[in-house]
Formats: sequence, structure tokens, C-alpha cells
Amino acid sequence: MTAEDILSSEDFKKCADFHGHICPGLAIGYRAAMAALDWLEENRAMDEEMVATVETDACGTDAVQVLTGCTLGKGNLILKYYGKHVYTVVSRNSGEGVRVALKAGVLELSERHQELVRKLSGGEATQEDRKEFWELHHKKSHDILGGSLKDLFTIKAAHIAIPPKAMIEPSKMCERCGEPTMVSKLSEIDGHYVCKDCLDNDYQPLAE
Amino acid sequence: MTAEDILSSEDFKKCADFHGHICPGLAIGYRAAMAALDWLEENRAMDEEMVATVETDACGTDAVQVLTGCTLGKGNLILKYYGKHVYTVVSRNSGEGVRVALKAGVLELSERHQELVRKLSGGEATQEDRKEFWELHHKKSHDILGGSLKDLFTIKAAHIAIPPKAMIEPSKMCERCGEPTMVSKLSEIDGHYVCKDCLDNDYQPLAE
Repeated sequence: MTAEDILSSEDFKKCADFHGHICPGLAIGYRAAMAALDWLEENRAMDEEMVATVETDACGTDAVQVLTGCTLGKGNLILKYYGKHVYTVVSRNSGEGVRVALKAGVLELSERHQELVRKLSGGEATQEDRKEFWELHHKKSHDILGGSLKDLFTIKAAHIAIPPKAMIEPSKMCERCGEPTMVSKLSEIDGHYVCKDCLDNDYQPLAE
Repeated sequence: MTAEDILSSEDFKKCADFHGHICPGLAIGYRAAMAALDWLEENRAMDEEMVATVETDACGTDAVQVLTGCTLGKGNLILKYYGKHVYTVVSRNSGEGVRVALKAGVLELSERHQELVRKLSGGEATQEDRKEFWELHHKKSHDILGGSLKDLFTIKAAHIAIPPKAMIEPSKMCERCGEPTMVSKLSEIDGHYVCKDCLDNDYQPLAE
């Protein structure tokens, strides 16, 4: 598939729609997720057929959620704040797993692109700077979408323990704020059950 | 809007498509996200116009991602593992914020529904049990979608500090595994820059 084929595909449009814009990080997530699904010979997880571990909360993670069906709210997305474009997907069906890791240099931006990022971050970007930034950003995304898989990633089998499926768990009221809370997230303190929010935020003992 | 109106709406279909199925948690997330957007008088965030804090990684969070545009990969979703269906959304445009908290009892399941959950979790559910479980699950979702907002949630203005926008950050190679890593996530150890994955997993000092 060429970059143009991908850009006009339903799958990529869903990713861009969910994420809100097209950017190099989303392009990496798209390529990584598709590579993982190909490797595993799996389709999108309707239920919890797959589990993904993402090592970043950057843009690529949104494409992984859309394409693999491993979503934050379904309990089959494990998030690690490592700051790395590394995506590991395991299949509950086959027991197989694959680790897709971005190669060094792929996300390197040109001097001009970096300068525009600095200007945007510093709030000094003009209207033209913004326009140029998005042009460079789209060009970089295009290059990633059209790049060869072996230039983008190191792809290896991953042998990791598959976590148990998410459970439906009853809630109980926090005795401090009165809000329903999953039982496993309540702390017992001074004989009372209290949620983490109440515990974290200036906890005062409850009257007996 | 009736439950039927919602079930046949494009917005709800997008949530169900992303999440993979319809369930009471997704219904709560749909109602909470819509209530927050109404309160803020905002539309879905294309960029980072809004920031959402979710106090659970349960199903509702997927509807919040789809409807508010505050997604894990865009840096405008803050995740707290409190086990509570509490969703706080703030607008960068207006500076206003709203906290939508599920009321006690809304997610309570009937005795039979709970029994089926236990059977499913224990791997003892028959084909008929599964069918009945999903019927009860859909009925509960329907009730939540059609319920009145004041029966479902406590909705209050939230005055919270708005976090800075996500930054595009350069990566450097981890000196141990050689994989590109966001600079702010690297640790300096023995004069070498090492990623958290290498640091966590049986770190051995690098040769000088």
C-alpha cells in the first residue's frame, strides 16, 4: 500500500477522526498496529481477544486503540510511561505475541521543523509558521506511511504473560464522599472504607 | 432523547464501534460525556481545547475519549485509577470545568445479573447463560441511556488548574537498548542515559 492508499483508507480515516488530526506519531501508531495485526494474523479485538502494551501516551497510542481494539476502557490496554514508541500485542487466541519497536532516526525532524516546534511550544508562532508546521508535519506523516516496514521498526516475537481478562466488579460507597467506588480500589482506614480520592486529598479521620 | 434515539445516533454508534460492544459502563460514559459537553457548551475537541480527567479505566472512559476528543494519545486525558465513574472536563477556551459523578445505585445489578457475572468470571457460564447475560446487560444499558440526568449523576462546576498543552519532545537513544526514548523519560545513571524499561528490568551497569 502506498501512503495515498493508506490516507484514503477507512481504517486510517477512523484513526485520524478519533485522534483529531494527522501527525507523524499517529502514522507510526498506524503502521505499528497494522504490522502487529499482520504478524499475529488477527483482526481487531471486538472483545478482549488481544492485549496491547503501549510504552507511551503519545499520538501513536490512539491508532493502536482504534486498530487493535485494545482500548483504555476495555481493560486490554496496558499503559507504561516509558516515552517509547514500542507496541507489544499478544493474542489470547494463539498465545503468540509481537513487539514492534520504532527504530532510531525515524521520528527525527528537520532543523526547520524543530524550529517551528520550538516556536509553537513557546507561543511565538505566526499564522504562517503554523501553516508551515502543519505542511512539514503532514509531509513527515506521509513519509512514515509510505516507508518500508523494516526501515521503521524492529519487529520480534514477544513472550509475555497474558494478563487475566477484565472483571465486572461491584462498587461500594466511599464512607467519606458517598460516591460509588470499585471495591478493590477502596482502602480500609480506621475501620472505614474510603476511596483513593478522599485518601489522597487531605484525609481527615471520620468520626466513629 | 429516548434510549432508542441515542442507540441509533451516529455518536453512540461511534462509541460502540470503538469499544466493541454495548454495556452499562459505556452507556454511563456516553451520558456523562454528553452532559459535560452540554454544560460546557463545547463540541468535541479536535485539538486540545478540552482536558478530561477520568477516575476509572472502565468502559465509560472509551465513550469519553470518543465524544470529548480527550484521548489517551493526545495528552488531554488524565487517568486516575480510583475505580470511580467520575469524569471531570475542563475547557481551555472558557476556563470552565464540570465534574460529573455517578450516583450510588445506578450501576447496581439484579441478583440474577450478578449471578451471571460470577458464572462468566468463573468460566462456568453456558451458552444460554451468556445469552441471558448480554440480554440483561443490554437492558441495563437501555435504562441508563433513557434515564434522567439528575437520577444518574451529580453534576457540579469544577475549579481545577488546567494542565499545560502536550509538547512535541525530541527522543534520544537509550544507551542500553539503543531504542529512541523521549528525553524527559531517560534516567541518568552512572553517567549513562537509560530508559525506564532497561532500568526496571534487571539493570546492570554499562561498561565505561
